[in-house]
Amino acid sequence: MPEISQRGVHMPASPIRKLAPLSDAAKARGVKVYHLNIGQPDLPSPLSALEAIRRIDRTTLEYSPSDGYRYYRENLVKYYEKYNINLTPEEIIVTAGGSEAVLYAFMACLNPGDEIIIPEPAYANYMAFAISAGAVIRSVPSTMESGFALPPIEAFEELINERTKGILICNPNNPTGYVYTPQEMEQIRLLVKKFNLYLFSDEVYREFIYNDTPYVSACHLEEVEENVVLIDSVSKRYSECGIRIGALITRNRRVHDTVMKFCQARLSPPLIGQIAANASLQENGDYMQYNFDEYKSRRDFLIERLNRIPGVYSPMPQGAFYTLARLPVDDADAFCAWCLSDFRYKDQTIFMAPASGFYVTPGMGKNEVRIAYVLNKEDLDNALTVLEKALEAYKNTW
Amino acid sequence: MPEISQRGVHMPASPIRKLAPLSDAAKARGVKVYHLNIGQPDLPSPLSALEAIRRIDRTTLEYSPSDGYRYYRENLVKYYEKYNINLTPEEIIVTAGGSEAVLYAFMACLNPGDEIIIPEPAYANYMAFAISAGAVIRSVPSTMESGFALPPIEAFEELINERTKGILICNPNNPTGYVYTPQEMEQIRLLVKKFNLYLFSDEVYREFIYNDTPYVSACHLEEVEENVVLIDSVSKRYSECGIRIGALITRNRRVHDTVMKFCQARLSPPLIGQIAANASLQENGDYMQYNFDEYKSRRDFLIERLNRIPGVYSPMPQGAFYTLARLPVDDADAFCAWCLSDFRYKDQTIFMAPASGFYVTPGMGKNEVRIAYVLNKEDLDNALTVLEKALEAYKNTW
Repeated sequence: MPEISQRGVHMPASPIRKLAPLSDAAKARGVKVYHLNIGQPDLPSPLSALEAIRRIDRTTLEYSPSDGYRYYRENLVKYYEKYNINLTPEEIIVTAGGSEAVLYAFMACLNPGDEIIIPEPAYANYMAFAISAGAVIRSVPSTMESGFALPPIEAFEELINERTKGILICNPNNPTGYVYTPQEMEQIRLLVKKFNLYLFSDEVYREFIYNDTPYVSACHLEEVEENVVLIDSVSKRYSECGIRIGALITRNRRVHDTVMKFCQARLSPPLIGQIAANASLQENGDYMQYNFDEYKSRRDFLIERLNRIPGVYSPMPQGAFYTLARLPVDDADAFCAWCLSDFRYKDQTIFMAPASGFYVTPGMGKNEVRIAYVLNKEDLDNALTVLEKALEAYKNTW
Repeated sequence: MPEISQRGVHMPASPIRKLAPLSDAAKARGVKVYHLNIGQPDLPSPLSALEAIRRIDRTTLEYSPSDGYRYYRENLVKYYEKYNINLTPEEIIVTAGGSEAVLYAFMACLNPGDEIIIPEPAYANYMAFAISAGAVIRSVPSTMESGFALPPIEAFEELINERTKGILICNPNNPTGYVYTPQEMEQIRLLVKKFNLYLFSDEVYREFIYNDTPYVSACHLEEVEENVVLIDSVSKRYSECGIRIGALITRNRRVHDTVMKFCQARLSPPLIGQIAANASLQENGDYMQYNFDEYKSRRDFLIERLNRIPGVYSPMPQGAFYTLARLPVDDADAFCAWCLSDFRYKDQTIFMAPASGFYVTPGMGKNEVRIAYVLNKEDLDNALTVLEKALEAYKNTW
């Protein structure tokens, strides 16, 4: 048999995926599994999107332009204006989810061996896309003690060398829920400018910022306009993960044109997804407000409950719909697996994502889990009861 | 400004795309442009697919599994059975079009510097995906004189060295319409077995084979089961290019599991596309027969008409919906551009794809164009009249 590729060998298998068979087996035993492990919103997609799909009147489901329909990009321009991000349709490329945007950004900007700096913990798939492009991720650790604030500028500067090509941030952050302050964004701006780096900024959770931190987009930063590559997606914004519509946004013409070569090779982003995403842009504030209020109230409920469980600590996330919590266990990977394989309380158990998969540095986050609050409050309440009982029972297994 | 990547620099810009602005400009001048340049079928998608989309009753457009819905993969198993390709759902990974399947096949199987051998002319985007993976394409030339038959086995063997990892074929072929004979497939099988190579086989046009050549899939070949990676797509089969649903099929567990790591990183293939593709599988024979008959009759019409134009020659394509035609011009790139920029006949002109973009060897195919017969016969007739008039007028520009 021919060998598989080295990048294939080095691609991380998601820690969540490794646990999925245990979850399936638990369900097969009749156990109800509360999914706190993935960022799949349970809230409904906008009615306008569903109706646009049902009204489809084409006879041939043809390719769309490689950068997406112009009318959709024009409507996106209006959407971003509300956030004081001023773009033209020519600066927007519609992608198959934010995932494709990250992959093509790396493909277009990074050579094999080039390094990018990412504050950790970070969304695990950035590592996978970096490996796909042959790039190397260097991490600056943020800590639970500081509420996952941006690491000090010196931590970045220490890592910068001749191979450093960019910084990647996720703001609001997955998995920490942290929202970078204007001061932190200014730090990043200065770094990017001083060392002439790319700034890849994943801002797919911008709608979900619950405190008073003003949202500063990488696209707001001055004098680094050509350095910024914005990653976006409608997946979380409109509970539309399945339509696979994201965007790569850049004012750097050369980056735009290079990314377009990759986009032309894959021909077209999804047609029907664009129809749904475009309709979603017309939603009035009620839909967004309802989702915002719901997530915020779940967050308050979750964090309060978590911190009441003996030995558990979670800082208050300011955005997105995740939190990282420290558990009174030595090895959260083992604990999460045990919850699925061995534990049940009133025929229920929980599926959490071990945080180790979100850290680059081996050993970090070993006693942490990521919890996504994508369950209604009643389920969340039950899940937290299960967690509390599981921690009690786990202690006694030692 | 930071530099873009070397792979970005080397990504080919499609020759078709380079001409697109000329086409747009012609249309802006009020000229009707006949599109013979892209493989975008004009025939309708199946009604069953459109109805399935209109009947969508979900409230949340959620992620599908990374390898696609199991029910869809189970129905695909039944579809392939009709072609005597016997698979299990676990051997099928649903991808965002055939494009993603090619990219991930290369990513999973090829290291930077690894070589694959492709008979040329070939679908231009294979080159783009190879560059994305850092792989090198070596080409064995097939010629119009031999009707684009498979080059002799010696031509392959000459290129094989320690970096050679695979062979890629497209069968039926885009752009030539050639269908590999059982003898040729046996040649390929022997090569693959002898040198332990991957066989990447793109068979998205299997429904459209117009002569009596029996269809031999790479999945039919014995003793190389673990070497084969089949690329598929519903885009051409059901005129559903826009839903972005393809498949990567392999019986090699290690390749499957490695490709899955890339698929998990991008989370999910399109949800609504899978609903449409699945419904299309239920189409009875009438839909497929109508499309088959229509393409076949267009092919007969096109080739007969082409060969009646003085100085033009096209072999008879046996499958797909393309032909390569030789024109009495020195430089088909220049001629195709001139048709769009300078020529009009009764306010009409034609957009053809210069064949140079389908060859790897510089200089090959310089006087050839690829013509896609994705227009109804009346439009095809008009387009061919325009071509004849254009060739006459072009002669006089010299």
